Amino acid sequence: MSEHLDLENWTCPVPLRDYPSIVLGHGGGGRLSGDLIRHLFVPAFTGGADGTPLAQLGDGALVEAGGARLAMSTDTFVVRPRFFPGGNIGDLAVNGTVNDLAMCGATPLYLTVGFVLEEGLPLAELGLIVDTMAAAARMAGVQIVTGDTKVVDAGHGDGLYVTTAGVGLVPDGVRVGPDQVRPGDVVLVSGPIGLHGIAVMSVREGLEFGADIVSDTAPLGGLVAALLGAGIRVHALRDPTRGGLAATLHEIAGSSQVGVEIAESALPVPPEVRAACGFLGLDPMYVANEGKLVAFVAPEDAARALDILRANPLGAGAVAIGTAVADHPEVVVARTPIGGTRVVDLPLAEQLPRIC
Amino acid sequence: MSEHLDLENWTCPVPLRDYPSIVLGHGGGGRLSGDLIRHLFVPAFTGGADGTPLAQLGDGALVEAGGARLAMSTDTFVVRPRFFPGGNIGDLAVNGTVNDLAMCGATPLYLTVGFVLEEGLPLAELGLIVDTMAAAARMAGVQIVTGDTKVVDAGHGDGLYVTTAGVGLVPDGVRVGPDQVRPGDVVLVSGPIGLHGIAVMSVREGLEFGADIVSDTAPLGGLVAALLGAGIRVHALRDPTRGGLAATLHEIAGSSQVGVEIAESALPVPPEVRAACGFLGLDPMYVANEGKLVAFVAPEDAARALDILRANPLGAGAVAIGTAVADHPEVVVARTPIGGTRVVDLPLAEQLPRIC
Repeated sequence: MSEHLDLENWTCPVPLRDYPSIVLGHGGGGRLSGDLIRHLFVPAFTGGADGTPLAQLGDGALVEAGGARLAMSTDTFVVRPRFFPGGNIGDLAVNGTVNDLAMCGATPLYLTVGFVLEEGLPLAELGLIVDTMAAAARMAGVQIVTGDTKVVDAGHGDGLYVTTAGVGLVPDGVRVGPDQVRPGDVVLVSGPIGLHGIAVMSVREGLEFGADIVSDTAPLGGLVAALLGAGIRVHALRDPTRGGLAATLHEIAGSSQVGVEIAESALPVPPEVRAACGFLGLDPMYVANEGKLVAFVAPEDAARALDILRANPLGAGAVAIGTAVADHPEVVVARTPIGGTRVVDLPLAEQLPRIC
Repeated sequence: MSEHLDLENWTCPVPLRDYPSIVLGHGGGGRLSGDLIRHLFVPAFTGGADGTPLAQLGDGALVEAGGARLAMSTDTFVVRPRFFPGGNIGDLAVNGTVNDLAMCGATPLYLTVGFVLEEGLPLAELGLIVDTMAAAARMAGVQIVTGDTKVVDAGHGDGLYVTTAGVGLVPDGVRVGPDQVRPGDVVLVSGPIGLHGIAVMSVREGLEFGADIVSDTAPLGGLVAALLGAGIRVHALRDPTRGGLAATLHEIAGSSQVGVEIAESALPVPPEVRAACGFLGLDPMYVANEGKLVAFVAPEDAARALDILRANPLGAGAVAIGTAVADHPEVVVARTPIGGTRVVDLPLAEQLPRIC
């Protein structure tokens, strides 16, 4: 550390000072991640202003350039292992940013790619990952337009980290965001949950769950375009990645100042995910997905929205799981099969680090 | 490595197969970097098509969205140490992408930020870096609109890596790129070279060069706007970062199919940089800069362009260093003070790894 570095110059804001150093949970999508964003990144980058794109705290930012309404997003991937059932870090990185743009209601158009390669990474492995990214970009209908590559000495990376960023075009009249959510909105999820996180865990922990569980990594732009194109009043969209469905519902409830009530029995948890979660001591609501969306839609449109989702192979398992309610704003509750309710908490950190 | 990973499926193209694994030089901005881009990334991401934005191989890509002409760029930073005389990885990351956008002739507007944090990074250090990024963004007139943070286990990073990506708006009528370069164009550089690379090396190697050499990290959008606003016929712009002035002139000569002839005696090398380079066995033409631009301008406009650059504190040391020539396309030659000429080669790798 250089003599020019005077750490005393910087005062750590509450509640961050409970953790004087970065811990894994700061990247986990739970409360620690949220603290870092709200109390460190946002105040610095917005200068405290409320109306800035960053202060919106969505999956992406809505901006304007040359008269065009654009969405911008970025996602960094450090998943370990880099190859897992159903995909690798390459399609994850493309789909991750594509989906963040789609969740803004945008048509994803262009991606950039930044690599941190570790000395010693086999070129053939890089080649496979790059080919996977190219195939994922073609499938999502986006162009990878520019990139950058840095190499770090052996022992200072983990093979390969990749950051994608993207730009999408928000169609005229489309306005999707937590501020649009109203009590009564129906909460839809586009298919079975928990697959990505469990697929990665199964490889990492050397577990065999009997059935093959594969990641659901997939581009969601088509589902969003179908909903918006049919005039469905979509109020909020989010893909439940890190922190799973629980973190996503929390985010929307927090940003939109509504409560969310879901029916536990309605959650689309595949039996093999439920079995693996039981074995690992995990709750499927907190496990990451990489090819699912959560939509808050106007109640009159909910049935039609489900039909539209189900007509697409990526939304074949779509179901309604609950509603937005005026009671208990910012709180997510689950109705249990025996008629009780429990509060769905936001975990401090994620259950599974380095899952994406 | 997973059972799902079949490296035999991927055949390494010539000349990449000389290096079956990633070496530091693949990130160095020299010939190894170029091979990786030309023979691995570009064929995969363009599908072999010539006219795509990626195939342009500039500092950024020119794209269209909703009728707006946009520039997009990304830069990944792994500089070691993270704090050095004159700056830290934070302002480097903001200025790096801002400058890539400016080199497309664009007005930089919006940035995204992706962090890879290593477990154990002091929060106060992250806070200082983030504050520096915020200040750099304000100075450059750009907004940081969204970001992502991942955390990797101790021993799998190096404190902090950061990837910025950005969007800029290309003003109507502006068309800057190597394909615009003509023989006779005058080559300008906006000030003294070699400062950034030597500043970082001085800290890393614990060297004392007598005089304090500080990084030149700075946003170049203002210089570009001044040139274009005054109607200077700017044909190509590039910021000579990794690989220094030599790599930049090579890139432009290669893309524009002209030769470049520079006068060694005209190169603005500060005495302390020359002394440090002598001590370290480096050529200042290959040392990275982070706040300089190289402009190829129409000969009739060269004198006025110099006046405009010099009127700005960031271009106070601007000089003409040579011309584009019809002879020896793609080759850069330097006239030596004793009247001879030498070919300025592109090095295989960079002299200084992890300089940005």
